[in-house]
Parts: sequence; C-alpha cells; structure tokens
Amino acid sequence: MSLRFEIGDTKDSARRGTLLTPHGPVETPVFMPVGTQATVKGIPQDILEELDVQILLGNTYHLYLRPGIDQVRNLGGLHRFMSWPRAILTDSGGFQVFSLSELRKVTEEGVTFRSHLDGSAHFLSPETATAAQIGLGADVIMAFDECTEYPADASRVRASMEMTLRWAERSKRYFEEHKRKVPWGSAQHSALSGQLNCRSLDSPNQPASGLVACARDDKATGNWQLTTGNCTQALFGIVQGGMDIALRKESAERTIQIDFDGYAIGGLSVGEPRALTREVVESTLEHLPKDKPRYLMGVGTPEEIVEYSKLGFDMMDCVLPTRAARHGLLFTSEGKVSIKQARYAADSGPLDANCTCRVCQRYSRAYLRHLYSANEVLAQVLNTIHNLSFYLDTMRRVRHSI
Amino acid sequence: MSLRFEIGDTKDSARRGTLLTPHGPVETPVFMPVGTQATVKGIPQDILEELDVQILLGNTYHLYLRPGIDQVRNLGGLHRFMSWPRAILTDSGGFQVFSLSELRKVTEEGVTFRSHLDGSAHFLSPETATAAQIGLGADVIMAFDECTEYPADASRVRASMEMTLRWAERSKRYFEEHKRKVPWGSAQHSALSGQLNCRSLDSPNQPASGLVACARDDKATGNWQLTTGNCTQALFGIVQGGMDIALRKESAERTIQIDFDGYAIGGLSVGEPRALTREVVESTLEHLPKDKPRYLMGVGTPEEIVEYSKLGFDMMDCVLPTRAARHGLLFTSEGKVSIKQARYAADSGPLDANCTCRVCQRYSRAYLRHLYSANEVLAQVLNTIHNLSFYLDTMRRVRHSI
Repeated sequence: MSLRFEIGDTKDSARRGTLLTPHGPVETPVFMPVGTQATVKGIPQDILEELDVQILLGNTYHLYLRPGIDQVRNLGGLHRFMSWPRAILTDSGGFQVFSLSELRKVTEEGVTFRSHLDGSAHFLSPETATAAQIGLGADVIMAFDECTEYPADASRVRASMEMTLRWAERSKRYFEEHKRKVPWGSAQHSALSGQLNCRSLDSPNQPASGLVACARDDKATGNWQLTTGNCTQALFGIVQGGMDIALRKESAERTIQIDFDGYAIGGLSVGEPRALTREVVESTLEHLPKDKPRYLMGVGTPEEIVEYSKLGFDMMDCVLPTRAARHGLLFTSEGKVSIKQARYAADSGPLDANCTCRVCQRYSRAYLRHLYSANEVLAQVLNTIHNLSFYLDTMRRVRHSI
Repeated sequence: MSLRFEIGDTKDSARRGTLLTPHGPVETPVFMPVGTQATVKGIPQDILEELDVQILLGNTYHLYLRPGIDQVRNLGGLHRFMSWPRAILTDSGGFQVFSLSELRKVTEEGVTFRSHLDGSAHFLSPETATAAQIGLGADVIMAFDECTEYPADASRVRASMEMTLRWAERSKRYFEEHKRKVPWGSAQHSALSGQLNCRSLDSPNQPASGLVACARDDKATGNWQLTTGNCTQALFGIVQGGMDIALRKESAERTIQIDFDGYAIGGLSVGEPRALTREVVESTLEHLPKDKPRYLMGVGTPEEIVEYSKLGFDMMDCVLPTRAARHGLLFTSEGKVSIKQARYAADSGPLDANCTCRVCQRYSRAYLRHLYSANEVLAQVLNTIHNLSFYLDTMRRVRHSI
C-alpha cells in the first residue's frame, strides 16, 4: 500500500482529512511549500518542522539536473539527502520543461530540452520522468503531462489532452513495473537504516506491516528511521484540457479510468483570466472522485487557498509565499505589506500584530525594512519564515473551520 | 559605572574572566562574531543565542550610512533595533574608513569620505564617531583612531600615532561629556521599557543600582528589558604605532594615561607578514594593564584565536568565520574543508564528526555541497552556523583549559 486518505469532517463541499504517507501523516486541506532544489530557499529544515510543515514539494526537473537523480538515490533518496523526515511530493518535470518554451521540443515519445544551467540536451518522457521520481523517492509523485499553452485552438487542446492521457498510461505502467525500486523500499531498507522505529498506522503498537509511517528515533540527533514493510510511493494523475470544460470533463473521466492514487488539476494559471481559472477548476472538480485526494497545482494567493479549500481541494502548492518573501512582499492579517517602503523605516511595531511566528514575535517592521534595504540575506530568511507561517496558519484555520 | 572586568583563573599569560556589561555577562577570552549591518549575515538572532554568542560586533561606518544613527537611536538603540538583548561592541568606523583608501581624506580634524553605497560625502571625527557610537548604544565602544597604512616610513608612523593619541583624547572628552545620552540610559529608560526586570550584578536579589545587567522578561515573547540605574557605555582606547615596537610601547603608555575602560591593539593585519604581526602584538601586550580587558582587533584564524588567548588577550573579532562560510570554506576539527569540491558530492558523512552543532548533527557533506553548488541561500546559512559554532567551541575549550 502506498497512501491512505482518510476523510473526517466535511462542511458543504469542503472536507478535512489526513493523508497517511510512508513518511507520516499530512492533515488536509494542506498547502505544500515549494523546496525546488531540495531546500525551501533559506530555511533550515528544523524551522520548517517548527512551522509544522507536514509535506514539501520538490521539483524533479531541477533535481534531475542538479545534483542528479543517481546522486540523490545513492544517498538514500530525497528525504535522506535533505534530512527531511516528513512527506514529500515531486512534480513530474512536465510543467517546468513547459516553462522553458524556446529550449524544448515535444514529440509523442517525450520532451527534448536544454538545461537552463548549461544548455546541455536532455530528454524526459513518461518513463524517464517516472524513473526519476522513483529515484528521488517522494511519497507522492506525479504522472508526466503536457501543460497546454494558452491560448490554444480547439484541435490543439484536444491533441494535447489526448497525448497527456497516453502519457498518463505510460507513467502508470512504468510506475507499476518499477515502484519497488524506491530508495526507501524494503529491498533497500537494510542498507539505509540500522535500527527500526516504525509504527503501523492501523495499529500503532503493532510491528509495522502494510502501510507504516516513519518516526524519528531521536529528536536531538536528528536521526530518522525509514519505513519497513510493503510501502511504495503514490502516483497521481493530472487532468488537462485547456480552458474547455467539456474536454476537462473527458480528461478527468479518462484519467480516472487509468486509476491513480489521487488526481490533480494542471494546466491552469498559464496566462488566462482569473475568473476563467475559477470556472474551469470548479467544473473539473465535479468529475474527480470524492474518496481520493484532489490536488490543485500551482495555487495560489492566501485568498485562493482558502477559496479552493472550501470548494473541496485537499492539496495545493505555490511558490508565491516564498518568492514574494524574497521580494519583500509579506502577507499579513491586515493585507499585503511591501516591506521595502520608506514608511516602515521608523516603524517599531511587529510586521503582523496578529501573528505568532518567531519573526513577528521578535523583530520590528523597521528592522525588517532595514535588512531588505541593506540587501541582507536575513531579510529573505525572516520574510520567508513569516510568509510560510502565514500560509500554514491560514490552512490551519481553514481546517478548523470545517 | 560602565563595565566591570573580573579575572578568574589564570594559566601562564592567559586569563579567564568575565566582562560584566549593561546587557549581561561575557565570558572571556571571547571571540566576537561580526554583525556589520545589525545582522550576522543570514543568521536569526535566536540561533546566535542558541550558539551562546554573548557579544556581537557592529560596524559604526555601515550603520551610520544605513539605516543611519538617528534611525537606530530613535528606535531605542542597536540592541532594541536588532532585537539582541546581549552585549554589543561597535568599532569607531576608523578602520572601515581607512579601507576606503581612494574615497577618503584625512586631516587633523577628522576624515572626509565618500559612501561606498552612493558616493555621498561624509565626515567622521573623534567627536562625530563617538556621538554615533553613543547613538547606537553598544556596551563597549571604541575611540576613533587612524589605522596607519603598511608599509609606512618612520616619520609617517609617528605622525599617525601622535594624531591617534590626540584623537583618543578628543574621543574620551566627548564621551565623558555625552555618555548619559545613550539610548538605554536612565533618562531614556522609561520611554523604552514598560516593566523592569533588572538585576544588580553585585547583589542579584537587590533592586538595581550602579552596574546592572538586563534580563529578558519572557523568553517566549522575545521581549527584553533595559537596565535601570546608573549605566553608561564603556570606551576602549586603541594602540597604534605601525610595526615599530618602540612606538607601540609609547602609544600604549600614552593611551593608558588617557585612561580607558579597556585597551585594543589596532593597525595590524594590514598587509604585513604574519610573523611581524605576532612580534608586534606580543611586545605591545606587555605594556597593557593587566586589570583591564585587552582586545586584539581583527584576529583571526582558529589557530590564532587560540594562540592569542594564550598570550593573554581577552577579546577578539574577525569576519573570517562568517565570510569564509559564504565562500564555502568550513573550519573543522580535522582542518579546513572547501565544501564546493566535487569529492564531497557523494559524501554522506557529517561535515565534522566531532562537532555537535545543528548542521553537523543533521546534514551531510553531500547536501552542503549541493546547496553550495546550486547557489542556495541555505548554504550560507548552514555554513555560517557551523563556522561560528566551531569558533565558539574553540574559545570554550580555551577557557576551560585556563
């Protein structure tokens, strides 16, 4: 077994649940911070733990290029490589390669692209992207899809959707044939972990069998132990279909037929108006199975993560809180604050008087403004901690409201 | 009273002591991490506390330019501005202005220089540098000196030394006349702190009077309370005299006549051979009073801070551990590690197996190498934490050996 999704309370369309992964439980609806290159930029992992981050997103494209999949796999997988004992999700690389635009060429077989780092040529396909994600060993991995550009004419959208469906089948087939090769699978287990400290999620006091979760053996040393038993990763399918509601329905239905552990909506926020995004999301959601996790990719603002949680999504991710932090844009209970502004230079108050994060508890707006103006790295560190805290608090409130 | 220096155990020339400052005790010999722009680059203050940093160094030149002295003073001084409740030392700006070389002009009155940020013209003199340091409100401040260039002929070295002595007198005079204006002095006190939580160092259970130290009222909120009573900053004099041992002796004797709270040796590590540095340091040290803190400025490597502690210095500072960290150069119990090297790409071991810092306890060399190669900010954060930890551990061992 790879993943169990337990749904608890519901309220209208919204539901509160728990995603039981091989590396621990994830309370949903959840916002997943983005840790592109095996790090949430600037933030030590223990601070992420303190913020109660339960699942991180890693980018296959970036990790594939640097440090390379073999490197990570040989070091025990992404969890062990970055010393992150909790759950991880990786994207398939499809969207990242899509973003390269001029540097890529798409064929039925897959995508040829040039590295943004050194221009070297690479090839990703449903098989190689899935292999890469098995090598990284995230708890949840994604089928390799084509993100349809916007705008696109009807025939192009259909053709792209059809290819994504064929790629979904190939991803699934490759996954089923190779999923035992995950670095923390039972075969590799003994090499990675000297002492077991696992618990069955079904019966916490029983020896692990079937779905188990990892536990740290010793908080102080930072050591952590991998799961034994019969665990594999979970594979999610991605619904495409551009902005065509009928195609989205068809994509959803045919993706579900392939049978995945969860379903994501991709191909949005590619330049279309926000109202259209919302319309496509809402209509597509109708067609996703209620008993599986539903993941809206690349969303969004604090308002959007609340809104889409209420619609019934369980998982979301976005670079916004971390990227905005690096540009001095901070989210607060009273709206956005651009900390670079001169008006904060003498402001001795906290960034957000309603926030309990370690930044708001200790530092003034004047100090944060100084750090940003002086181009100090601590600006990025503190701003990111606050924005992540704000997003995680927002989702905690959403969960409590359900 | 401004500072008390208690000497405990001694061993040959070395001594172990405690510097009792208005913001808490500092165990000596001490290495002071450099926090140029009111931040030790990349490191949140609570991590510095966790590392047991007891005193930080701030750079008057940088803070004078940005955010500006008035800004810091109006926000309660540097401690409050950067939320650092423990001791701080500021340099006078003399050495920093000296480093500008082409952008400065020295006269008897002081130094005219252009900002490295925007080219704007500024003037620092013994009076304005002391005023700036009173505005910042560090516990220990430094007389404004001229750092003599190397090499320099005999008449130039004498003339420079004589001017530093005149500047020392002017610094001292200005300080005595204005020292009550420190932002945390009793006059400003009521505006800064609602609730007192001070302790007398003489009688911890008595209401504060005379020399007191600050305590945080609540660790959880990060609030901290300023001292009441009759506290001022301490002013240290700086011995110059180039590489001329006789002039150094004369400079020491005449600086001591002016009467400072402690004495520093400046004007070294300006390009001279290491053996010459050592010779000048050793001979100058002879002439400094044994009952006052002795501060060797701008030193040094891990070996040097041990060596000079054994000679009898009580205080040292250097950008080396923090700057080297940013360049991937790490100090370990087995020597220097350049983490960028490809040999560490697959190294799953800790950076330093003998180190108990949070970096060595959690992350592998392979991960640190990846972060550095991928130009990730977390590389700087983790590398700096480790190097500071290594320096502070080194000094702890030195103190225990005395």
